[in-house]
Amino acid sequence: MPVQKFAIADAHFERLDEQEALIETANVVDQRHGGPVTVGFGRYGPGAVLEEVIAVYDTMIVLEGEISITSNVGTVTAEPGDIVYMPEGERVTIHASNNGALTAYVTYPHWEEARASHYADRRR
Amino acid sequence: MPVQKFAIADAHFERLDEQEALIETANVVDQRHGGPVTVGFGRYGPGAVLEEVIAVYDTMIVLEGEISITSNVGTVTAEPGDIVYMPEGERVTIHASNNGALTAYVTYPHWEEARASHYADRRR
Repeated sequence: MPVQKFAIADAHFERLDEQEALIETANVVDQRHGGPVTVGFGRYGPGAVLEEVIAVYDTMIVLEGEISITSNVGTVTAEPGDIVYMPEGERVTIHASNNGALTAYVTYPHWEEARASHYADRRR
Repeated sequence: MPVQKFAIADAHFERLDEQEALIETANVVDQRHGGPVTVGFGRYGPGAVLEEVIAVYDTMIVLEGEISITSNVGTVTAEPGDIVYMPEGERVTIHASNNGALTAYVTYPHWEEARASHYADRRR
């Protein structure tokens, strides 16, 4: 893949999980493209909540709205232009504001592969 | 390093190079923190130009202003909310608009280490 620009209008959003209808992700670069990182946009509906052990190094940049992230060191609230850094292995609860939120993300390694492996492990 | 939020007001900007006074970077996460990625904010003065062979996988998110990136596949222009993906090894010219630009970036691996190594090689 060469140098590329991605606008939100280019993104194809998919629901994160069946039970989490209010959260959608849109990878624009991922394991299909041969590089080490996944890049994309995230869309959180009003009040959406995601509880998860982060399976990758996940960096989010808030583009619209507001999200709060609770971890073992407390809660931070991020607004447009803020960066949230979530290291692998951290247990977090991500909570969107009443207006929802739009984010950009970069993960190392690829979050879909890591997450699939994590959930496969849990099913054993 | 635990989960953390970084606002632009937390960032400590430094000039990228002596000859590039109009471009400043502010790492908020890097090789000092034990993870695989460097995360930070970039600030481009009006009309600032950076020509470089990208030494890492570099993802930029435009927060304010506008930048154009010229590579071997042409020129893309990115506005607030847009993502620019620049794979390792690509030769790019980054050009800020007349109002300058503010960006967030995530690089894998750490750009300062890769860039120092690249310039050391060139001096031999």
